[in-house]
Amino acid sequence: MRAARYYGKEDIRIEDIDEPTVEPGTVGINVAWCGICGTDLHEYMDGANFVPPQGHPHPISGESAPVTLGHEMSGVIYEIGEGITDLEVGDHVVVEPYIISDDVDTGPESTDYHISPNMNFIGLGGRGGGLAEKIVVRRRWVHKIDKSIPLDEAAVIEPLSVGAHAVERSGAKAGDVAIVGGAGPIGLLTAAVLKGIGATVIMSELSELRRQKALDAGVADHVFDPTQVDVAAEVRKLTDDRGADVAFECTSVQVVVDTLMDALRPGGVLTIVSIWSHKGELDFQKLVLKEIDLRGTIAYVNTHPETIKLVEEGKINLEPFITGKIALDDLIDKGFDTLINHNHPGVQILVSPGG
Amino acid sequence: MRAARYYGKEDIRIEDIDEPTVEPGTVGINVAWCGICGTDLHEYMDGANFVPPQGHPHPISGESAPVTLGHEMSGVIYEIGEGITDLEVGDHVVVEPYIISDDVDTGPESTDYHISPNMNFIGLGGRGGGLAEKIVVRRRWVHKIDKSIPLDEAAVIEPLSVGAHAVERSGAKAGDVAIVGGAGPIGLLTAAVLKGIGATVIMSELSELRRQKALDAGVADHVFDPTQVDVAAEVRKLTDDRGADVAFECTSVQVVVDTLMDALRPGGVLTIVSIWSHKGELDFQKLVLKEIDLRGTIAYVNTHPETIKLVEEGKINLEPFITGKIALDDLIDKGFDTLINHNHPGVQILVSPGG
Repeated sequence: MRAARYYGKEDIRIEDIDEPTVEPGTVGINVAWCGICGTDLHEYMDGANFVPPQGHPHPISGESAPVTLGHEMSGVIYEIGEGITDLEVGDHVVVEPYIISDDVDTGPESTDYHISPNMNFIGLGGRGGGLAEKIVVRRRWVHKIDKSIPLDEAAVIEPLSVGAHAVERSGAKAGDVAIVGGAGPIGLLTAAVLKGIGATVIMSELSELRRQKALDAGVADHVFDPTQVDVAAEVRKLTDDRGADVAFECTSVQVVVDTLMDALRPGGVLTIVSIWSHKGELDFQKLVLKEIDLRGTIAYVNTHPETIKLVEEGKINLEPFITGKIALDDLIDKGFDTLINHNHPGVQILVSPGG
Repeated sequence: MRAARYYGKEDIRIEDIDEPTVEPGTVGINVAWCGICGTDLHEYMDGANFVPPQGHPHPISGESAPVTLGHEMSGVIYEIGEGITDLEVGDHVVVEPYIISDDVDTGPESTDYHISPNMNFIGLGGRGGGLAEKIVVRRRWVHKIDKSIPLDEAAVIEPLSVGAHAVERSGAKAGDVAIVGGAGPIGLLTAAVLKGIGATVIMSELSELRRQKALDAGVADHVFDPTQVDVAAEVRKLTDDRGADVAFECTSVQVVVDTLMDALRPGGVLTIVSIWSHKGELDFQKLVLKEIDLRGTIAYVNTHPETIKLVEEGKINLEPFITGKIALDDLIDKGFDTLINHNHPGVQILVSPGG
C-alpha cells in the first residue's frame, strides 16, 4: 500500500509498503482522510522531535525512523480482530492516536495516561499512521462515530479534541467569557469548543484573514487586532470592567501571555495550549495578587467521546475548517509547502491516502 | 493609648493616640500579642506599598498615612458592640485583618472576597492595627479561639492562615508528597499545615539554621541544601522516580521555581506563595508537557476557621515558631532591625502592645 514515511528532517517519502496485519484486539481501518498537523510540520522542518531516530527504537513501540506519518485520521473499518464484539466492519471511526505503555491505566476514569512516561503518538512514534491507505489500531484507541458526520469533517476530530481538552483543563463553563490568543488551527478549534459549550469567545489575532475566518466559522463573538487596540482593555469593556474568566494561549508568543494575564479577572484561569521552544517570562506578582491559575495542557485524555458528541449533536460545525483536500502524492508540494510558506487562513489540509 | 504609627519609609513612630470607639456591629479587643510580618518590613524598608500615602485616602477605609501598623494579632474582648450576640467580653479572639468593600460578598461560601477590588488589610490600609493597646474590629473579621490556645501562639494564626490558604489552593491532601522551596516564615508555616493535614514534607533551604528549625519544629520530613545536592533528583529518589505531587515557592528566587518545576510529577501543582518584585522566567514547555498547574495564592479567604481548628486539635504546634517577645517601645530596635539585619532562623517576633 502507499504510505508517507518520515526518514528525517526534510525527508518524507511516499513509498509502497506492506499492508499491516489485523491481530487479536486490533481493528483494520481504511483511512478516508488524514490531516496534516503542526507537529508534522515541525518534524519536517526541525528534524525529529517525536519520531524516534533510526537506531533509537521507541521504548514502547520498538520502532524508529522511517515511520509512517499522520495522526489526524478518519476511516472505515474493513476487518475486526479476534475478541472485539462492539465494532463492525463498515463502522465509521476516528483514532485517538496514542502509544502508551501497557502498565498504564488507560481506562475511562483515567485522567493522566496522556502524561505517562514515554507516551508517544501513532503516526509519529510508530504503529503505522494515517498518511497510508490502511492502518491497524488497538481497540482502545478506536472511537466509532455516527455516519451523519462526513468522513472529511471527522478527520478534524483529533485536533478538535486538543481544543476540547484545553477547555476541560481550564474549567470553562456555559456563560463564561473566554479570550483566545491566536486564531491558528488550535486557537480556532479551541474557540469552536468554547462556543459549543456556551461560552462567549473573544479572539486576539494579528492576521486579518484569520480574524475573518474566526467570524465566518462562527467561533468568535468578538475579534481584535492587538496591533490596533489594547485587547485587555477591550475585554474589560466587554465584561463590565471585570475581566475574562478563562484565557487560552495558542501562539507561543510572549506578549500574548502578558496580554492574557492582564485580560483575566481575579481568580481567572490561563491555559497554555501552544508548544514553546524557549522559556518565557511570567509576571509572578500578578499571578499571586490576582490568584491566577496557569495550566499546561497537552493532547487529550478520555476526551474523544465528549468531543465526538459535540460534533454529533451539531454544537460544532467542522465544515468551515477544511480548507484543502489533496492526494497522498501531493503531500509535500500541496500540503507541507502550502502550510509552511503561506499565511494559511484555515485549519486543515486533508489528505486522501487512497485517492 | 500607645500605638506604632507608620508615617512613611523608615519612619515608624510609637505615639499616644485616642482609644478607638466600639460602634454597633464591632468588637473592642485588648491586643495581647501582635507579630511583625514581612509585609511590615517591606513597608518600612521600601516605602509605602499597602499603606495609602498621606493625601491619598484608601477608597474603602478613607484613611491614609499615618496609620497604625500590625495585622497578626491575638487578644481578649473588652467590649461588645450593639447587635452582636455570639461573642462575649473575655472571649479570646484573633483577627482576619481585611478591609473589603461593603458591596462584596464576604459570606462563608465566598471564595473570592480576598481578591476583590481595592482589598487592603487592617494594620496597613487603616482601621487601626495590632501594634496598639486596643483595636475595634467589625464582627465579620473576629474569630473566637479556644482558651486552650496560648495567646502568644494565637498571634501566629494569621500567617499560618496564609500557609493554610496556599495549601487549599494547591489541592494537597493526606498522603501527598510536598516540596517546599524556602524555610522562611511562610515556608515553615506552609510546611506546618502540610504536616498537619498528613502530607510528607520535603524542604529546600540554603540556611542551615532554617533547615534545622524545620526539623526541630517537626514540619519537615526531609531537608536539603540546594547548593549541595540536586533537590529535584532527591525528590525523585524519595518518590520512586515519580516526583512530588505539590510544590510551594516561598522565596521569590528564580532557581527555586525551576527546581520545583523539575521536582513535580506530571499533573503536579506548583503554588507561588511569595511576593515577587520583578518578572520571572517560566519553562512553558515543561508546564505543557507535564500538564503542571501554576497557581498564585494571596492571604486567605474563609480560611481562618479551618486553620484555628488545626491548632485547637493539636495538629499544628505553634510554640516553636515564636522566637522573640518584645515590648512596643522596642519595636524598631529589637523587632524590625533584628528581622532585617540578621539571618533570623525563626518565624515570629511578637510584640506586646500593652507591655
